[in-house]
Amino acid sequence: MNQVIELVKTNAKKEKPSVESLGFGKYFTDYMFVMDYQKDKGWHSPKITPYEPLVLDPSSMVFHYGQAVFEGLKAYKTKEGKVLLFRPDKNVKRLNLSCDRMSIPTLDEDVVLEAIKQLVELEKDWIPEEEGTSLYIRPFVIATEPYLGVRPAGQYKFMIILSPVGSYYSGQLSPTKIYVEDQYIRAVPGGVGYVKTSGNYAASLKAQEEAEEQGYDQVLWLDAVEKKYIEEVGSMNIFFKVKGEVITPKLNGSILGGITRDSVIQLLQHWGVPVREERISVKDIFNAYHKGELREVFGAGTAAVISPVGELKWKDEQIIVNGNQIGDLSMRLYQAITNIQLGKEEDVLNWTVEI
Amino acid sequence: MNQVIELVKTNAKKEKPSVESLGFGKYFTDYMFVMDYQKDKGWHSPKITPYEPLVLDPSSMVFHYGQAVFEGLKAYKTKEGKVLLFRPDKNVKRLNLSCDRMSIPTLDEDVVLEAIKQLVELEKDWIPEEEGTSLYIRPFVIATEPYLGVRPAGQYKFMIILSPVGSYYSGQLSPTKIYVEDQYIRAVPGGVGYVKTSGNYAASLKAQEEAEEQGYDQVLWLDAVEKKYIEEVGSMNIFFKVKGEVITPKLNGSILGGITRDSVIQLLQHWGVPVREERISVKDIFNAYHKGELREVFGAGTAAVISPVGELKWKDEQIIVNGNQIGDLSMRLYQAITNIQLGKEEDVLNWTVEI
Repeated sequence: MNQVIELVKTNAKKEKPSVESLGFGKYFTDYMFVMDYQKDKGWHSPKITPYEPLVLDPSSMVFHYGQAVFEGLKAYKTKEGKVLLFRPDKNVKRLNLSCDRMSIPTLDEDVVLEAIKQLVELEKDWIPEEEGTSLYIRPFVIATEPYLGVRPAGQYKFMIILSPVGSYYSGQLSPTKIYVEDQYIRAVPGGVGYVKTSGNYAASLKAQEEAEEQGYDQVLWLDAVEKKYIEEVGSMNIFFKVKGEVITPKLNGSILGGITRDSVIQLLQHWGVPVREERISVKDIFNAYHKGELREVFGAGTAAVISPVGELKWKDEQIIVNGNQIGDLSMRLYQAITNIQLGKEEDVLNWTVEI
Repeated sequence: MNQVIELVKTNAKKEKPSVESLGFGKYFTDYMFVMDYQKDKGWHSPKITPYEPLVLDPSSMVFHYGQAVFEGLKAYKTKEGKVLLFRPDKNVKRLNLSCDRMSIPTLDEDVVLEAIKQLVELEKDWIPEEEGTSLYIRPFVIATEPYLGVRPAGQYKFMIILSPVGSYYSGQLSPTKIYVEDQYIRAVPGGVGYVKTSGNYAASLKAQEEAEEQGYDQVLWLDAVEKKYIEEVGSMNIFFKVKGEVITPKLNGSILGGITRDSVIQLLQHWGVPVREERISVKDIFNAYHKGELREVFGAGTAAVISPVGELKWKDEQIIVNGNQIGDLSMRLYQAITNIQLGKEEDVLNWTVEI
C-alpha cells in the first residue's frame, strides 16, 4: 500500500467530553478521513482533514435514491496504552460486499485499512479508557452526484468519522426484552438485507417504535416468505442455547453476517461447545422452552458485543428465558470477547490488530 | 392555510439551459423551498431561498440510516400561458404516507401544496414550453440530526427543488424492452415497497444494471414470496391489455401506488374500457401471448406518462408484444393524459390545478 494520505492539520481542537456524558455516536473527534470517486478518475485524493460539515447539492443522489453503505467497528486502548482494532479486515471486506450490492464502486481494501489506522493513530487521545468504553469507527460511502435520474451515481464520497462511546450497559450486562415481529418485514432473499446499506435501517424503525410502545427493547425479525423462521434481532445476530448446543440462523441472503456473530461461532468451536448454523423456526424455540430445553438466548453485535435476552414475546405468548438472568455462556462469551478486544486475555484466534 | 412562507431573494439568476440540453434532472432553478423540523418545535420556518448547497454534519442520519422520502410531479405551461399542476393533492398525500411508514413526522398537506404553488409561480419562467417538456417538481424529506444511534431522527429538512426537463422520448413514443427479474427482489409485503423512500431505489440498481447489460431497458419485478406474480416495472406501474380487457397488478403492500396508474384506471373507466386490478402471474401473461390474446403492454409513471412495451423476456423466452408497435390504447392514453396536463383537452376528471 503506497497510497499517500494527505493530512490537513487543524489548530482548533475540541474539548473532550466527560466519560459520563459519552453515550453512543453523539461526539465526534477533531479529524475525519475523506476520499472522492469520480467516474473518470476512480477513487482518488485520500485525505485526513479537520472534522467539518459536508457541502452537498440538494439534488445529491444519496438524498433521493439512497446509495449509501457503512461499517462500524471499535478501537480500544489497553492498560499498557496499546491501541487495538478488532478484526478490521472483516469490516473492510464487508464494506466492499455492501458496495457491490448497491452498485457503488468498490474500494481498495488496503487503502481503507490504512486510512482507519492512520486516522485512529492521529486521534488516539480520543479513545476513552474506562471499562466498556471505546472509540467507535464509522466508515461510510454516499452518492454525491447532483442528478435526479434513477441509476448508479457517477460521484461518491468515502469517509471515516470517529466517535468516543460509552459503555452500552450502564452498570453491567442486563437481559433485554424482545418482541417477535410478525407484521413488518426487514429483508428478503434477493434483496439487500445481507449488506449494511442505509435503507435497511430506515425500514426497521417503524417496527422498533411499535415494539418499544409495548415495552420491548428490540424486534426479532422473521423471514419474509413464511414468517416462521428467525432472522436477526434489531441490529444484532441472535443465538439460542438449547440443551447443550448453541444454534444460530444460517446466513441466507437476508441476514447480515455480523462479525461478532462470526467471532462467537469461532470461540464456541475453539472451546469445544457444539454450535450449528441452521434454519430455526420461532415455533421450535418456543417448543424448546416448553420442554425446559431453552437455556439461554443472546444477541451478538458490535455495539453491545453480547446482549442476553430475558424475555421473548411472540403473538400472545411471553416466555422468560433463564429466569430473566444472564446465562453462564452469555457471560463467558462477553468476557472472553471484551478481554481479547482490550488485550487482557490471550488473543487465541489472532483477531486484534495493533496500531 | 395562513402559514406565511418567507422569501429570500437572489439577484444571481442562472442562465436557462437550451431545450435540447435539458434531459432529466440535470438543471435546477434559482430558488428552492426549505422547512425544518425539530422535535420540540415541529415543522417550522417555511422559506423560499436561493437554490444553494446543504451544509450537513457527516453524522447526519440520512447518510447512515436512510430516513428519506420524496415525491415527483410536473408543472406544465399551456398555449395560453397558464401554469397547470397534475393532481398535486395525490402527491402530497402520498408524501405523508411515505413519512408515516418511515417514522418521519408528517407534514401539513396544505402547507406543502401552498409551498409547491408559490415556488412554481415564482419560477414559472423556467417552465419549458416545447412538446413533451415540463418543470419537474421534487419535494423530499431527509433526516438531518447528527447522531449515529439507530432510531427515528429528531431533526429533518423538507425541501422542494425544481428541474426543467426534456421530453422523455426523443422524437416520439417508442416501445421498450423489459426483462422479467427472477433473482433480485425489490420489495415484500410488510416492507416499504409501497412508499417512495430512497432505499427502494438503491435496492433496484443492481438488477437494472444487469438487465441493461443484456440489452433490456427496464426490469419487471416479481413478488418476493413466490416469484410468480407481477409487481411493477422499474419506476412505473404496468398494464396488460388481454383481449378487450385491461388488467394491472392490485396494490398489495409492496407495489407503489402510482398517480399515473390511478389516472389510467380512471380514464379507462370513464371511457367504458373494462379494467381490473388483480393478482397477475407472469405465466398467465405469457400464456395469453401464446393464445394470441395479449394485445398491448404498457407502463405508467410520472416521467414517461405512458411507456409502451415491445418485448418481454422471462427466463429463456422472449415475446414480442403487438409486433413491437405502439398499441392504439397506449397511444390514446398517452395523448389523453398529456393533453389534459397541457390544457389542450377538456379536464373531464378535474385533475389539473391552475397556479
